[in-house]
Parts: sequence; C-alpha cells; structure tokens
Amino acid sequence: MAIRVVVWGENIHDRENATVRELYPNGMHNAIADALNRQNDIEATTATLEQPGHGLSAERLAETDVLTWWGHKDHGGVDDAIVEQVVQRVWEGMGLLVLHSGHFSKVFKRLMGTPCSLTWREAGEKERVWVINRNHPIAAGLGPYFEVPQSEMYGEPFTVPEPMETVFISWYDGGEVFRSGLTYQRGAGRIFYFAPGHEVYPIYNDPNVQTVLQNAVRWAHNPAAPWKDIANAPNRPVGAALEPIEEKGPSLHAPGEAGFR
Amino acid sequence: MAIRVVVWGENIHDRENATVRELYPNGMHNAIADALNRQNDIEATTATLEQPGHGLSAERLAETDVLTWWGHKDHGGVDDAIVEQVVQRVWEGMGLLVLHSGHFSKVFKRLMGTPCSLTWREAGEKERVWVINRNHPIAAGLGPYFEVPQSEMYGEPFTVPEPMETVFISWYDGGEVFRSGLTYQRGAGRIFYFAPGHEVYPIYNDPNVQTVLQNAVRWAHNPAAPWKDIANAPNRPVGAALEPIEEKGPSLHAPGEAGFR
Amino acid sequence: MAIRVVVWGENIHDRENATVRELYPNGMHNAIADALNRQNDIEATTATLEQPGHGLSAERLAETDVLTWWGHKDHGGVDDAIVEQVVQRVWEGMGLLVLHSGHFSKVFKRLMGTPCSLTWREAGEKERVWVINRNHPIAAGLGPYFEVPQSEMYGEPFTVPEPMETVFISWYDGGEVFRSGLTYQRGAGRIFYFAPGHEVYPIYNDPNVQTVLQNAVRWAHNPAAPWKDIANAPNRPVGAALEPIEEKGPSLHAPGEAGFR
Amino acid sequence: MAIRVVVWGENIHDRENATVRELYPNGMHNAIADALNRQNDIEATTATLEQPGHGLSAERLAETDVLTWWGHKDHGGVDDAIVEQVVQRVWEGMGLLVLHSGHFSKVFKRLMGTPCSLTWREAGEKERVWVINRNHPIAAGLGPYFEVPQSEMYGEPFTVPEPMETVFISWYDGGEVFRSGLTYQRGAGRIFYFAPGHEVYPIYNDPNVQTVLQNAVRWAHNPAAPWKDIANAPNRPVGAALEPIEEKGPSLHAPGEAGFR
Repeated sequence: MAIRVVVWGENIHDRENATVRELYPNGMHNAIADALNRQNDIEATTATLEQPGHGLSAERLAETDVLTWWGHKDHGGVDDAIVEQVVQRVWEGMGLLVLHSGHFSKVFKRLMGTPCSLTWREAGEKERVWVINRNHPIAAGLGPYFEVPQSEMYGEPFTVPEPMETVFISWYDGGEVFRSGLTYQRGAGRIFYFAPGHEVYPIYNDPNVQTVLQNAVRWAHNPAAPWKDIANAPNRPVGAALEPIEEKGPSLHAPGEAGFR
Repeated sequence: MAIRVVVWGENIHDRENATVRELYPNGMHNAIADALNRQNDIEATTATLEQPGHGLSAERLAETDVLTWWGHKDHGGVDDAIVEQVVQRVWEGMGLLVLHSGHFSKVFKRLMGTPCSLTWREAGEKERVWVINRNHPIAAGLGPYFEVPQSEMYGEPFTVPEPMETVFISWYDGGEVFRSGLTYQRGAGRIFYFAPGHEVYPIYNDPNVQTVLQNAVRWAHNPAAPWKDIANAPNRPVGAALEPIEEKGPSLHAPGEAGFR
Repeated sequence: MAIRVVVWGENIHDRENATVRELYPNGMHNAIADALNRQNDIEATTATLEQPGHGLSAERLAETDVLTWWGHKDHGGVDDAIVEQVVQRVWEGMGLLVLHSGHFSKVFKRLMGTPCSLTWREAGEKERVWVINRNHPIAAGLGPYFEVPQSEMYGEPFTVPEPMETVFISWYDGGEVFRSGLTYQRGAGRIFYFAPGHEVYPIYNDPNVQTVLQNAVRWAHNPAAPWKDIANAPNRPVGAALEPIEEKGPSLHAPGEAGFR
Repeated sequence: MAIRVVVWGENIHDRENATVRELYPNGMHNAIADALNRQNDIEATTATLEQPGHGLSAERLAETDVLTWWGHKDHGGVDDAIVEQVVQRVWEGMGLLVLHSGHFSKVFKRLMGTPCSLTWREAGEKERVWVINRNHPIAAGLGPYFEVPQSEMYGEPFTVPEPMETVFISWYDGGEVFRSGLTYQRGAGRIFYFAPGHEVYPIYNDPNVQTVLQNAVRWAHNPAAPWKDIANAPNRPVGAALEPIEEKGPSLHAPGEAGFR
C-alpha cells in the first residue's frame, strides 16, 4: 500500500503574489504533491488553510501517514484545536515534514518546545546544502552537496533542541550557516525539518529538493499501528502488579481512581 | 553570589491531606527550600499556586536562576500566561527542575512537546534508583544506587523526547523500570526531571534525594546573561551582510519590513 | 533482494559445554540464523571463530548487509586485522547487531570508544524487558514488555556512550536495571546492542527474542551503496574550490600533496 | 585549587618549519599554555612528542584534570601504550580538548570509534565560526560569531558520531561548512573538539580562540574522583543480590570465578 501523504499549504502568497502565482500556477502545495506522486509508493493529496478545518479533519488525519507543512504569512490563522489534532497524530506515529517558514508554525513550535527562531535575509543569494550524514535515507541519491541558486538566507542560531540527527547544513553567499536538515522524534512520530523553500523562487521545482522530500516521506513513515492512547497515564493497580506486592503505608488515591492531570 | 532558587509548590495536598501535613508541616516546598538552603552557594525561597500570579511575577522570575516545580492535583489551575513566562525564562537560560508528578505540569509538557505520560501505582513499594552516569555532576556524592523505601511507582513508557543524558533509572518492587533522572536543554535553559517525590511518603526528607536536588540546582544554573530576545527572528538586511552580496530576483518583503510569525 | 546477514558465533561453549550443546545442537549461530531465515526478506548464513579468517573474509564482508556478533569466552582470540575489516564495513554502511556478551567484543569496544563494562550475575533469574520506544521498528510486534524466564543479570552502569535511542530497559529479579536495547550510528553503519542471550538458557529459541532480532536486521540494513572511501581525507585544492578564492599566506603542503595521518 | 591542564603538542613543525617558528617561537604548546595560564583558575604545563613517554607518564596523567591534544605530522609516532593510558584517564573523568588536526590523532579516533575524516584545503581563507549554542559555557564571552582571518578549510562530512552538543559551525570563503565545535562524553570524561588551529597561521594568538580554550577547559573539568575501575565488569554473586533470589538452572561460571573478557 502506498504511503498516504497530505501536503498542507497556507495558499496565501500562492494566490495573492504575482511572482509566486507564476512559479506555481496551482500553488506550492500542488507542486509538492505532484513531485511526491511521481513516486509509485507515495500517494499525496493536498489541504489548505482556507478550507473548512484547514482541510485537516480528524478523519482525514487518521488516514494520513505523513503530513508536510508549509506556512508563512498567517501562522496565527491556524486554529489551535486543529494544531492539537495534528500534534496528537504525530505522537501516535504520523510522520511530519516541516518546510522552510514552517519553522514558525504553531505545529512545529508546539512539538519542539522552543522558540524555533533564526535570522533571515531575502536576497536571492545562493544556498549550498551540504550532506552531513551521507548515507542517511533522506540523502539517498544526492551528491556531497547541492545548490539552490536563489534562496532566502536562514541563519544560526536556530533555536531548536539538539536534533536526533543533523542531515544537512547550508552555506550562504552572505556569510551565514544553517542546520537545514534536522530529524526529531516526538512520541511515536518522526519529524524532519527542511529549510529550502522560499516562495518567490522555484525551489520546489528543483530535482534535488524533490528528491529530499520523497526520501523524507519514506523516512518519516511509521508503519506501526497508531499509538492512540499515548497521552493516557494508566494506573496499574496493586493487584495487577507483575510481581506480587502488598500495599504499604498511606495512599492518596482510592482504589480504581484516575490520576490527576 | 549564591544561586537564586525559587521552589514552586502546588501546596494543596500539603494543606488538605492529613498524611502530607504531618510529613511536611510547612509544606513540601519549604522542606525542599530548607534542604537547598543548607548549602552555602544556594539561596532558595518559595512560591505557591494560591499566591497572586502563583508567586511567579515577571520581576521575580527575572531574578531567579533555577526554578523547581512540584504540582499534582491542579495542573489545570496554573494560568497559561504564567506558564508562558516561565517557559520564556527557561529559554533565556533559567534552570528548571521538574519533580515527580510535575511530569504532567503545563510547564514541562510545553517544553517537551510530548504527552509526558507514564504508568503509575500507589503502593508504597520500594524504588531503587540506579546511577547510570556515575560521575555526572547531578550524581555527586551518591553510591551506585540509593533506595526510596516507599515510593509511588512510575513506569515506562515515559513519553518524553530522548534525553540529552540519562542520569538515573529506577527499579520497582512491582516489576517496572523508569528513567527517573533525565536532562534536557531548551533554548539556553537546562532542565532536569527527577521522579521520586510522592507526597504521602517522606521522600524530600531523604538525604540522597536532597543531595540530588542540591546537585541539580548547581548543574541547571547557567551564569550567562539571559538571552532575552531568543524568540525574535531578526532580519539581516542585504546591506549588512557579512559578505558583500547583491540582491537578485524577486522579493516578498519590502526593505526593513519585519518577518511574518 | 533479501537482506544478506552473516550470523557470527564464537562457537566454543556451543561445542564444549554440555548444557549449551543440548539447548543448541547446531550451535547458537545456527539457531539465530534459522530464526532469521524464517523471514522471506532475510537470507542468513553463519561464520565462526575457528574458521580461517573467522569466516569473515573481505569478500564475504563486502557482500554482507548486516552482521550479528556473539562472543564470550575468547574475545581475545579474534584477530585484530579481522576486527578492523569489520569496523571498516560498519563505517561503510553494514549493519551490526551486538548480542549479549558481545558487549566485551573487540568489535563493539572499538566502535564505542568506551570500556563497555557492566555488572553481572549468573543465577537464572527472570529478566523483564520493557519497551521504552514503543513504535520503534525494532519493537514491532511486541507488547509493552516481554519476559526472559531465565537470564544472566547485566547491570548498570553500562559504560557505553549515550545512545541514539533507548529501545529496551530490563528489570531483574535481583534488583538491577539495564539498558538492554540501544541504537548507535558509526560512519554510515547502524548498530544495535541487545542484552539477552546467555548461552546456558534457551534464549535464542524465545519467540520475542527472535522477533527483536528479525526487526533489528531490517532496521540496521542500509541499502545505500557502501561508503568505501569514508576514512579518506581528500584535499580540495584551491583551484577546485566551489567559490573562487585566492591562496593567501604561507602553506605547509606543496600543491597536490596528501595530508598527514 | 586550580584546574591542572597538560597542553600536549607534537612540536615538529614548531621546530622544523620557519613560518611556524616565527609565529610561535616557543612552540604552539607554550602559546596555548600561556593563554590558559592567564586565567587564575587554570594551571597549565606542557608535554611534547619527543619527550620520554611523550611527557605523559601514568603519574602525570593521574594528576591531570584536562589534557589538550594537538598533533599533525606524526600521529603514527604516538606510542599505542600511551594512547591507551590517555584513553583510560578520559574514561576515568579527565577532560580532553582535541585541537584542529588532532581529529586524526590516535587518541581521538580511539574515543570516537569512527574514521574522523574530513576534506581540507590550505589556502589561508577566512573561517567564520558561528555560535550555535549561544549560552553554552564554551561560548561565554563570544559574540554571535567570530572570524579567523586565515584558516585551513576543514569541510564536511566530518565522520564523527552525532555529538552531544553542536557548539560551533564554521563558514569558509571557498564554500564549505564544518561542525567546528562539538562535545562528547566517553566514560566519565568530557571531550571537546575544536577545529581552528592550523600551524602556519597565528590562530592560537587570537583572543577569541583563547577564550574558547579557556572556557572549554572549565567545561571539560570533572571534579568527581576518578572512576579508576570503570573498565572492570564485577560479578554480583547470588548471595549478595539486593533482592533475595535463588539460583535457578545451569551455570557457566563456578562461584567466585571472574567473567570472560
């Protein structure tokens, strides 16, 4: 069965900005989805901010293996309840690819627990993406580096937690560096942050960038059954202890009572 | 100058439960603060849930080097605005010790980005805390293990991110294990989670537990100046680039315009 | 194409000790290989200490995707040159499963850079293996824990580096805990250490243990082309720099000269 | 009591190369030691390759809190027995600073378990060292970045394990990036790798570089008593188990017998 991907796009500049419209006539989300769908083992659809529930109903999320997230202009417009649904699904095992300005999305900040800030410059300068972890699945098919001819500079410090793995680090014409490909796990869900993707340049039409996204979908896909009750804190009563024990001393909870939250 | 610690306590069971009241006549927060104040390099005061602003005004937090957090019955009663202030201070570099049932506090869940769930049993069983990272500063003065004669069982899976370091792992009479001492960094702030501390047992009067808390305060203390603007994402304009570059191609932002959030 | 596994066994106690001989009439290595070969996507063969070159010629290693290592009585008898060949192949991307007393093998100590010591007791006591990272590929098909009815106790501190992931932690009857399933990456190679496997108990006949080994083979398998020159430190001469630069100032090396090692 | 540092230098180019001799009339090791000794809490002496036992007797190592290591031309000339003594002391808790071309030293490769390879170019180009972990103790007193006007380029992939922390990443004129400040722990010992330090440029006279070295010495210093028996694997006999157990089933070892290695 193919990996079921939902490509989420904010779809604002895609419609309102002439440059972006020309580069991505069907919106960036469709350009990304098309690139993914060129792979037989991936089945990508799209969802956007302006749709009811941002196109991310609980039912749809339940049937999503990997979600990709691109937003920029209106992070604040994403409904907090939807954010919590997405986060819960990541914890259950849904993969998440956070793209470019998605570093400041509610979803990513919520999962990282840090500001996720950085420095930036919009000058169309060259970004050279170095492969740090050469045989990592996300780097399959790439050379030692690839270049994005025109890119927005994202500079360190990138205030995220130490990653599980540093896959890419970028060099910029203007003198900065950036950890542009980082992996994390939160609950059962794998997360990949990937920096390139500024909307006024044709970055998602770049074959290397498309290769990264295809690889990352496969890497983030967790075939295990969703861990639905991951946020529960079940009581294991004394009588059900794996080793025979006797209750000693005082107690706060009556037998069978749920814990505090 | 001494390390300035605020010991935050929920102070509900301390007042309402006869067992807890007897064990900690001045509340657990004062028992913890007293243990810390026995060290010349630590200066601990307390704050509690029922105080205005939970005793954690912005001014006070600004003068706090390390905060310890114990809550259990009313995590939901902690004001979200205060939570954000605490989180911001951790990002700036304030140390944080999260104690026992604080695993489910808003502050800890916010910083971890995970459910922070576990399994539990209140049977007064023995917990043997094994030192995994023997020469870690937090383990200074301990033997290969120490025992908490009566403890609440906390069992795996503990749904937190992979830690920076695993300092302690606990063995329980009833057959479970738990990663009972874990370190993290979020922004510039160091975080230590420590499991023992159920309120109906005299755990914070235990010399080994007190040693851990004293050590952890020193470990979590970051003497660097607070990183106050850590959540900002400053623009580095083209003219101020470290290497001479020229703007190429289209642009989304007018010169000097702030980024989206 | 199936994953090509070589199951390496020391094959000393398998022949010399009556208990082991009875449990594993064809040796432990064959019991492990048989368990792996029950999976269609795995093709396992065996190699043993007493064979020429320990059965691990450069040619054979070059065609091995994943190597499993069990040794106990004669770690010192493994030829250093073979150890280096194995290590080189791990760096190139070959997966490695280190089993039980293999913690003290030359290969594992070489790749960890630490003593890899632990405490131990041979009492046939029960080991309860807790799954810490529940939806990790290595834990597929397991419940929250499984038990090894008779096991050798391995206790902390286990002097290995902080792992990439803690997959299992074990509880023992006698009061100890042990991080019994740990993942690492060294070069391009993935490494999994798994503790259960003392030879006088029928541990490799246990279905849960077999499931772990089958899962771990798949997890450790890196389909990328071997990174053969990973240990080289190539010069990038000035004329071949990606950005135009001019040589400034003094130099140690003549043009084209190799670096020191 | 001051932190006792031994600054180890290969001292070959320092004597044989006219450029290096002019920059460092007393050798690089003395330049580094002088910079450290300007701090009241540090007491640095030196040792060099050509001295008996490379100046690193067991007695001297036993009284060393932190060792710094610079070598380049003759890594192979370092005696394997001395390497093992150094490694053992790191495991016991001695801090280690590995400098520049020390990435290929026997000591560092031994502790990492990886090739520690990289790419390089000697062009006197500019290296801009970005601070990734801004309030880390090793970055105290630095700005967001500092520049080494003339440096040897070291490029990724740097084949080391994922670090505990990424403190610095460097940008080079010629288009490469490099993780130039990385932390590790091996046994009880803290290790910091720091890239700048090519001998034909006056890098160790640079105030920022000196600040990094002074900070790193303090960070790497572990005041805990040395963990001398860290490589032992002690038996915990059945009769001494912490929980009462009875021996069940067959056994490999006679009572009191040492384990295999």
